[in-house]
Amino acid sequence: MSIRVTVWNEYRHEKESEEIAAVYPNGIHAAIAEGLQASGGFDVGTATLDEPEHGLTDEVLEKTKVLVWWGHKAHGAVSDEIVTRVQKRVLDGMGMVVLHSGHMSKIFMRLMGTSCDLKWREADEKERLWVVSPGHPIVEGIGEYIEMEKEEMYGEHFDIPQPEALVFVSWFEGGEVFRSGCCYQRGAGKIFYFRPGHETYPTYFNPEIRRVIANAAKWAAPVDGPKRTFGNIKVPLEKIG
Amino acid sequence: MSIRVTVWNEYRHEKESEEIAAVYPNGIHAAIAEGLQASGGFDVGTATLDEPEHGLTDEVLEKTKVLVWWGHKAHGAVSDEIVTRVQKRVLDGMGMVVLHSGHMSKIFMRLMGTSCDLKWREADEKERLWVVSPGHPIVEGIGEYIEMEKEEMYGEHFDIPQPEALVFVSWFEGGEVFRSGCCYQRGAGKIFYFRPGHETYPTYFNPEIRRVIANAAKWAAPVDGPKRTFGNIKVPLEKIG
Amino acid sequence: MSIRVTVWNEYRHEKESEEIAAVYPNGIHAAIAEGLQASGGFDVGTATLDEPEHGLTDEVLEKTKVLVWWGHKAHGAVSDEIVTRVQKRVLDGMGMVVLHSGHMSKIFMRLMGTSCDLKWREADEKERLWVVSPGHPIVEGIGEYIEMEKEEMYGEHFDIPQPEALVFVSWFEGGEVFRSGCCYQRGAGKIFYFRPGHETYPTYFNPEIRRVIANAAKWAAPVDGPKRTFGNIKVPLEKIG
Amino acid sequence: MSIRVTVWNEYRHEKESEEIAAVYPNGIHAAIAEGLQASGGFDVGTATLDEPEHGLTDEVLEKTKVLVWWGHKAHGAVSDEIVTRVQKRVLDGMGMVVLHSGHMSKIFMRLMGTSCDLKWREADEKERLWVVSPGHPIVEGIGEYIEMEKEEMYGEHFDIPQPEALVFVSWFEGGEVFRSGCCYQRGAGKIFYFRPGHETYPTYFNPEIRRVIANAAKWAAPVDGPKRTFGNIKVPLEKIG
Repeated sequence: MSIRVTVWNEYRHEKESEEIAAVYPNGIHAAIAEGLQASGGFDVGTATLDEPEHGLTDEVLEKTKVLVWWGHKAHGAVSDEIVTRVQKRVLDGMGMVVLHSGHMSKIFMRLMGTSCDLKWREADEKERLWVVSPGHPIVEGIGEYIEMEKEEMYGEHFDIPQPEALVFVSWFEGGEVFRSGCCYQRGAGKIFYFRPGHETYPTYFNPEIRRVIANAAKWAAPVDGPKRTFGNIKVPLEKIG
Repeated sequence: MSIRVTVWNEYRHEKESEEIAAVYPNGIHAAIAEGLQASGGFDVGTATLDEPEHGLTDEVLEKTKVLVWWGHKAHGAVSDEIVTRVQKRVLDGMGMVVLHSGHMSKIFMRLMGTSCDLKWREADEKERLWVVSPGHPIVEGIGEYIEMEKEEMYGEHFDIPQPEALVFVSWFEGGEVFRSGCCYQRGAGKIFYFRPGHETYPTYFNPEIRRVIANAAKWAAPVDGPKRTFGNIKVPLEKIG
Repeated sequence: MSIRVTVWNEYRHEKESEEIAAVYPNGIHAAIAEGLQASGGFDVGTATLDEPEHGLTDEVLEKTKVLVWWGHKAHGAVSDEIVTRVQKRVLDGMGMVVLHSGHMSKIFMRLMGTSCDLKWREADEKERLWVVSPGHPIVEGIGEYIEMEKEEMYGEHFDIPQPEALVFVSWFEGGEVFRSGCCYQRGAGKIFYFRPGHETYPTYFNPEIRRVIANAAKWAAPVDGPKRTFGNIKVPLEKIG
Repeated sequence: MSIRVTVWNEYRHEKESEEIAAVYPNGIHAAIAEGLQASGGFDVGTATLDEPEHGLTDEVLEKTKVLVWWGHKAHGAVSDEIVTRVQKRVLDGMGMVVLHSGHMSKIFMRLMGTSCDLKWREADEKERLWVVSPGHPIVEGIGEYIEMEKEEMYGEHFDIPQPEALVFVSWFEGGEVFRSGCCYQRGAGKIFYFRPGHETYPTYFNPEIRRVIANAAKWAAPVDGPKRTFGNIKVPLEKIG
């Protein structure tokens, strides 16, 4: 049975910059969606910032099993109401794959509880993503490292809670390292942050990057586990006193 | 050198209920502050909801190394601006010890990214807090468990991120368990959530509970570690290309 | 494609005690294997202590994707050579599900690095296993807790490394708690320790317990991730100096 | 009150190689011990492989609060009996700081349960150790990174259990990364693995490296927590049935 994934993209860079449009003519979301579709096992939709309710209506979220998120320059334009709606869905079990500059999206900061800030540099430098968790389902089909000839640099300190599982650590040509593949659970939902994907590079056409995103979407898909209940339990399970 | 601790209390129950005032005549904060003062090594102040800026002015927070938090019925009355101010201080290194019903305080939910909801019951039942992390500094001077003859019950599922260190697990007479001592790092700040302390019981006069709170305040005190820097690092540490 | 699971059992209690033979006439391994087979998706074999090489020949281990382990009174009779062989396979990716008294098996202690000791009591008491990680694949199809009317008690402190994911916490009628569902990664292999299953109770016929074991075997199955390489890397990936 | 630390060194390289003797004329242990002594708060002793019982008699271990370990070429010469003795002391609360090539010492492999293997290269290359856990007591007084002009390279995959806290990640000139500061708890004992310190470089005279080792020894010192008890608890804490 296929997993319903919604790929959310800010979709502004591609409309405002010819350089970026040349890399992602149909938008970053289209490239990511295409990769997921091609990998099999997913039923993929997309949503973008400038759609009504940012494309994330109750109906869309209700059927979405995993939400992929790419944003950068317009984090502030995402409404707090939609952020709260997405957070609630995550706590109820929806998975998320947060990509690259999505690290400072409202939803990621909300789920992490930290600033999610970091160091960065645009210098066409080499990135090598080393696998540090070789038995993790997110690295199925991946070698000991993934090499990106040119990417933006992200460097430590990355202000996130310690990952529950750390899957990738990046080496950068300019001298920095970065925790670039990080797993979290929030409520019943699973979240994977994955670093690569600056808008000026064709990162989301790279087959290894696509493989990681597809693996992550499978890993993050909801589990039909216990219905969580909260509140006043007046009648105890055992006799008291 | 003593550690500056500020004990924050909502301080409403004690003013509105004779029953609770009988247990904590000077407020819950006074009982906690007294315990810290008596344990040595701390310079203790207090702050309460109904003071200007809830007693948490920039000046107070600036000198506070560890903030202890008790709140319950008036979480909503805490201003978002003050919550943001406290969060920022935590990310910059200030420690927090969040007590009992503080689990649903705005600041704890903000730092956790989850609902922090749970099951509860007021039935005068027995709680036994088992130590599961015997080498942790928070259990210095504590035996294999702490027994509370009567407490409110808190039960799983407790909607928190998985603790980075789990120190106590509670057994309740009525059949529930609870992760009742939980460590987190957020930014450069350390947070300890500690379960016991319902307002109708003299929990904060209990010497073992006081010992845990004092240990936690020592553990959570800031470290003079690296000054974290973020942003554009235009000049790389190494030559690129 | 089905996952090859080998269920290993000491298989001595059942041959020496009429009482236990009455509960598990074909051995504990047969009951566990039957549960896995019935759940679908597995190709199940068994192995027992008194077979040559304890039934764990190179050939058997080579094809085994997940090894389930039950042992109790004869841990010392397992040869160190076989333990080393199993450990090597785990590091190379084979999963393990270690059950109940397997906590003091040589292989589990070897993989944990600790004594794995605990408190115990045989008193026909009630156990309630609470789910504390509701989005974990191991609790698929399980409610908020599993109740066992009569089981042996295991109590804290359980001398294990802190679990990478804690899935279940048990409440016991006699006043103890126990971390009863614990996930670990060792090398490329995943390990799940699951508490219930004293030989005098029909625990492994319980549908919920069977479900958890089947879920755990799926979770622990190897991932076709990077081939791990070690040793002297004389030629650097980048120019030095 | 000062903390008793025993610095253990294999002490063979220094006696067999003039080049290494020139760097560490009194042995690596003397350089480490000198650093700890100078930092204050410690009472420092040393022990070496070729002393009777490797210098780790029951009397020495009994009073040792933290054991620092450096070994490389003669791991196999350490007797299994002494390894078992040290492991038992760690589980009972003694701290350990395992340095550099100590990653493949019998005691570290025993405590980890994995092969602890890694990639390595001797090429006089630059290492930059980035702090990823800025509020951790082990980085007190340290900047955002430590730079070593020339060191041996250690690269991922490092076959260790996921650290309970990851404190440093190293960048290497030749293109690798490494989890170079890793915290664990085993029983009541705390363990810190710290990567730098190849025998041909004066690493243990570096003030920042010395600071980290001193911080780690303080962090790893035992806590006077609960006396752990195990075994048959015939009399329950609560009435059963």
